[in-house]
Amino acid sequence: MGSIKRRVFMKSAVVGAIACTIEGTQVLFTANRATAQASVPRLLPWPNRRLLDLLGVEHPIIQAPMGGLVDSEMAVAVLTAGGLGSLPCAPLTPKQVREEVAKIRAQVHKPINLNFFCHIPPKPDEASESAWRKRLAPYYVELGLDPNSPVPTAPNRKPFDAEMCDAVVELKPEVVSFTFGWPEAALLKRVKAAGCFVLSSATTVAEGRWLEEHGADAVIAQGVEAGGHRAMFLTKDVASQVGTFALVPQMVDAVKIPVIAAGGIADGRGIAAALSLGASGVQMGTAYLFCPESRASALHRAALKSARSDSTVITNVFTGRPVRAIINRFVREQGPLADSVPSFPLAGNAIQPLRAAAESHGSTDFTPLYSGQAAPLCRELPASELTSKLAVEAIQRLGEMNRGSSGAANGKRS
Amino acid sequence: MGSIKRRVFMKSAVVGAIACTIEGTQVLFTANRATAQASVPRLLPWPNRRLLDLLGVEHPIIQAPMGGLVDSEMAVAVLTAGGLGSLPCAPLTPKQVREEVAKIRAQVHKPINLNFFCHIPPKPDEASESAWRKRLAPYYVELGLDPNSPVPTAPNRKPFDAEMCDAVVELKPEVVSFTFGWPEAALLKRVKAAGCFVLSSATTVAEGRWLEEHGADAVIAQGVEAGGHRAMFLTKDVASQVGTFALVPQMVDAVKIPVIAAGGIADGRGIAAALSLGASGVQMGTAYLFCPESRASALHRAALKSARSDSTVITNVFTGRPVRAIINRFVREQGPLADSVPSFPLAGNAIQPLRAAAESHGSTDFTPLYSGQAAPLCRELPASELTSKLAVEAIQRLGEMNRGSSGAANGKRS
Repeated sequence: MGSIKRRVFMKSAVVGAIACTIEGTQVLFTANRATAQASVPRLLPWPNRRLLDLLGVEHPIIQAPMGGLVDSEMAVAVLTAGGLGSLPCAPLTPKQVREEVAKIRAQVHKPINLNFFCHIPPKPDEASESAWRKRLAPYYVELGLDPNSPVPTAPNRKPFDAEMCDAVVELKPEVVSFTFGWPEAALLKRVKAAGCFVLSSATTVAEGRWLEEHGADAVIAQGVEAGGHRAMFLTKDVASQVGTFALVPQMVDAVKIPVIAAGGIADGRGIAAALSLGASGVQMGTAYLFCPESRASALHRAALKSARSDSTVITNVFTGRPVRAIINRFVREQGPLADSVPSFPLAGNAIQPLRAAAESHGSTDFTPLYSGQAAPLCRELPASELTSKLAVEAIQRLGEMNRGSSGAANGKRS
Repeated sequence: MGSIKRRVFMKSAVVGAIACTIEGTQVLFTANRATAQASVPRLLPWPNRRLLDLLGVEHPIIQAPMGGLVDSEMAVAVLTAGGLGSLPCAPLTPKQVREEVAKIRAQVHKPINLNFFCHIPPKPDEASESAWRKRLAPYYVELGLDPNSPVPTAPNRKPFDAEMCDAVVELKPEVVSFTFGWPEAALLKRVKAAGCFVLSSATTVAEGRWLEEHGADAVIAQGVEAGGHRAMFLTKDVASQVGTFALVPQMVDAVKIPVIAAGGIADGRGIAAALSLGASGVQMGTAYLFCPESRASALHRAALKSARSDSTVITNVFTGRPVRAIINRFVREQGPLADSVPSFPLAGNAIQPLRAAAESHGSTDFTPLYSGQAAPLCRELPASELTSKLAVEAIQRLGEMNRGSSGAANGKRS
């Protein structure tokens, strides 16, 4: 297992540390000037240190890699606060990955996570593409676009390949995470040889067991609440996807590697709950879309801010794979789950002009408004501040839970 | 709010109490001979006593009322161990409710919960019924049954009405819970006047707020993981139903009344997690189906025992309303969500002969195998023992979560 060696910068975090008390819990606050976060607690009494020790991070909080929605700026902010910052590399070329990693490394010396996709590339399928264009044609006409105007036919997301693997071997990120399964054995071998801690997401216990058997160092249990793409790779059945509450403890019981909970977690209560279920850490996406560092558009942000508990569904009409997104006109009229959508990621190409035209009029009718089910719990805070706040809230909540009748009288967020 | 007066039997529970330690947590064990549970802890240091004080129970654990699957025997067992036992009354006549309550009262002096349905009764619809019979006809033929044989046309579940309300007013159960919404104002007034603590289930935050506004004393937040019927009453959209992890904290933030978490909870880790999310208690169904006191058939039990994380879906083909059940042949071929199924509960009438015939051959092809998504976490224990074990596990887990790096090394169930 690719356990990461404790690094010098981890030791530096406790230099100048002072002891104080959060809600009855002794913690260390550090005066780490490099991060300009003098009031941020760095060494909190997490109940489970498996992931912290393996990854060399201070808080068991992974910022989800969200392609097109976060970049190096987000990763730097999260890393600075002691979480694991992630760079979504699927939309990037190897050159862009090198540039983004250089930006991160220039600003912060912490373990970083590079995320890649492992989907099977779609075969060109003219019949499917033509049927899709015909289906979208009325929207083109409505928006004053030519339904026969050419759109890109190449996939805008590539799976992890030898060329990208070269970049990984060269950059040696401390953590590499995969989505939609697992890379081929030869590539994995090179990634492991580069010393990377390697993980992937599972949406069922069977997928988690499969990943462990194939060498994963940890597994992300992606509950059905999660925003964005479902990571499913052994199953295609959206209807039987599992909620975080049921999935996490079953995964913990089924595998020996650490389990990271994802889906529906957006504040300290959720982190405390995930750890109570047996998770060693959490991955959070939607919570970070509210931060100024996210690349979510103003329209996307507005939709996130007005979302309610039941504003999202899992739909395949945006990319050809199931994603959780806020229900908008396109989902309502064509989804949520439609037959004969072009294979991932090709469906998106012909939607892009509709999206651009609609957005230019302030409409999100064709925008994939990725969101998990916990958007109403999210707060607009700088990512570094959010990460620290989440950690402190979680520790506070865990303390309250052990206090007997004196604590947490109404359960609301403190 | 219908706060229940502290009763004499609550005081008796601490008679002869002795202090001891569970995993570092001071608790009181009682020598309550009446329950023959001398080794069961009664006064555990629950972090949130709102529901305990309101209901007059010892543990914040409600056994879910599951029509046809549990009766007074289950309620007695759960009550004996300090949880809230529930009697599903929707399948019963008022006379049967009186008999079942008499059985409970004869064995245990604790607050009890009677559950009723609040659905809108279906209108007779011959076209829909005839289309449904036609759809099922091939199965009738396959099983050697006459597709034109008469089946009952009356609903086998009645909503809460004046006659049933008479029984409630007479029986004065400490707790009354409703499913599928809320009774009409005149009936509610009588139930409240009888001193009952009244609750109902919500599947969205909007439903929870509605219930609070209409006088609910507590709300059950039913996450999408839950087995059996979805309690949805303001929404009909199954696709946007919310996972427990996302629903509970949003509900807690939205209402002032206590929130009870349901869906995906099957062991102490789940209870600890639900409380961490802000819930004041939990309702558990599937976990109790494994107990010897449950009326689940041998075939149903076998299916529950072999279920995996993704063995269930939400389907409307069994009753006309969405339920979570294990995928079997009927769900696979006709569901999970079909159009033009007769209204709840009429769809079930024509399935019953198929179910009986198939079951007589050991087949569950047509059996509604109600189950939540956490069946793999469940254990075959007497209901009283299970209730006590759940309580102790939850307190242990909460203690481990506050122990810093020493506890819960791998997160598995202890």
